[in-house]
Amino acid sequence: MVMGPAAYAASLGATVARMTYELHYWPTIQGRGEFVRLALEAAGAAYVDVARGDDAAGQGLPAMQKLLLDRQQPHPPFAPPFLKDGVLLIGQTATILQHLGPTLKLVGRSDAARVWTQQIQLTIADMVTEAHDTHHPIASSLYYEDQQPEALRRAAVFCRERLPKYLRWFEAIIARNPAGTRHLVGGKLSYADLSLFQLVEGLRYAFPRATQAVLAGTPGVLALHARVAALPKLKAYLASPRRLPFNQQGIFRQYPELDIV
Amino acid sequence: MVMGPAAYAASLGATVARMTYELHYWPTIQGRGEFVRLALEAAGAAYVDVARGDDAAGQGLPAMQKLLLDRQQPHPPFAPPFLKDGVLLIGQTATILQHLGPTLKLVGRSDAARVWTQQIQLTIADMVTEAHDTHHPIASSLYYEDQQPEALRRAAVFCRERLPKYLRWFEAIIARNPAGTRHLVGGKLSYADLSLFQLVEGLRYAFPRATQAVLAGTPGVLALHARVAALPKLKAYLASPRRLPFNQQGIFRQYPELDIV
Repeated sequence: MVMGPAAYAASLGATVARMTYELHYWPTIQGRGEFVRLALEAAGAAYVDVARGDDAAGQGLPAMQKLLLDRQQPHPPFAPPFLKDGVLLIGQTATILQHLGPTLKLVGRSDAARVWTQQIQLTIADMVTEAHDTHHPIASSLYYEDQQPEALRRAAVFCRERLPKYLRWFEAIIARNPAGTRHLVGGKLSYADLSLFQLVEGLRYAFPRATQAVLAGTPGVLALHARVAALPKLKAYLASPRRLPFNQQGIFRQYPELDIV
Repeated sequence: MVMGPAAYAASLGATVARMTYELHYWPTIQGRGEFVRLALEAAGAAYVDVARGDDAAGQGLPAMQKLLLDRQQPHPPFAPPFLKDGVLLIGQTATILQHLGPTLKLVGRSDAARVWTQQIQLTIADMVTEAHDTHHPIASSLYYEDQQPEALRRAAVFCRERLPKYLRWFEAIIARNPAGTRHLVGGKLSYADLSLFQLVEGLRYAFPRATQAVLAGTPGVLALHARVAALPKLKAYLASPRRLPFNQQGIFRQYPELDIV
């Protein structure tokens, strides 16, 4: 997208007409893109998962790379996932969700509800990074096998200290929600609920024993996870081929030696 | 703060009367709290740095711990820093800045400007976490000396791969700003500018050689850093005792062996 200063200024103030969203993310993993997919799917929003499309149709990885490398792009994302919403290009998972929230009705209307939802989302993001770093404590650019001794040390700390600390915080805020324990924020579904569902899914895949040990003491997190999984649109999505399976290239990987109780 | 459901619901919708902000953060380090301090100082906002106050005056660490451990608090922060703004309690550095931005006039007015500013802020936050993890790649709960071999490996990757990648991204978005290269977003100072200043300060302290080598190729980042440092309110703050010096307990630490060129 090439824009001069005037078009850019106009775009910053523009009310964007509703179009099909374009999600750009690595095509073979759930990864951070999945948090965005879940929001789009739960809301029944029209979107194209661009990098999973056909090169011949102008999609596929080349389409994603083209946007990432476009030197005319005034708001280049640092990394996938990113969302194209009309003229807007938005990176950072939590920012994408915050942008989508009001339109998809996945966040409360008040400033306070929006701030609290985003605060929870950033805490989920922190835990996602820590979960990733259990198998890549030295560098994402190295193989797991080349940082396995470090991974074993980091995973022990993650499973014994961080995993309980985070999940118990989520349990506390569910238990303290003055509107009831069905949701993280107020009495309605938010993007944070969807992300917590995904976080639990990932933790159960990657650290089944350690996660189960903690979840036994966090009934509110478990119930919220089950409630999200049963949402009709989510249930249909999870059973569809659009839902990629977990695998050994994503954030959550099944290395039994890292599941330390 | 004990609130029943009705008071809580009212608080979610309330327009908060302007009061003195209360910043809660560890009293002896710049850390993540510094990104909030810089915003408050640059705007000349009235605030109390609670944990640095007197225990006798109801401040100090006990006041911070009391809020952190308050089981009646419906929005408990996961960790410092957090901000008390009237009845609102807000954690996560980027969320605090996003909340403060409009009131302190440290963010543009359009949704698009706000989304872009927050996207940059989250990318700064990611780099801050990676900088921290150079000296604590295994666990924050262990001493540096107990994870030094891992730190040496991680720091090498940080200095050679990540530091250039991040700083060159900041350089690119400054160079591509259609409103000019004086700021990250549009033609006005934003909280992202202040945070980039702090990031450069920290990197120069912790990794002076590696950072200098990259900054030589990022004149836009250097110029923005100098421009922020020269803002009258910031300059006064940086020369005051309110600005804590960097030290070996913070995010940015001076371990020469980790400054790898």
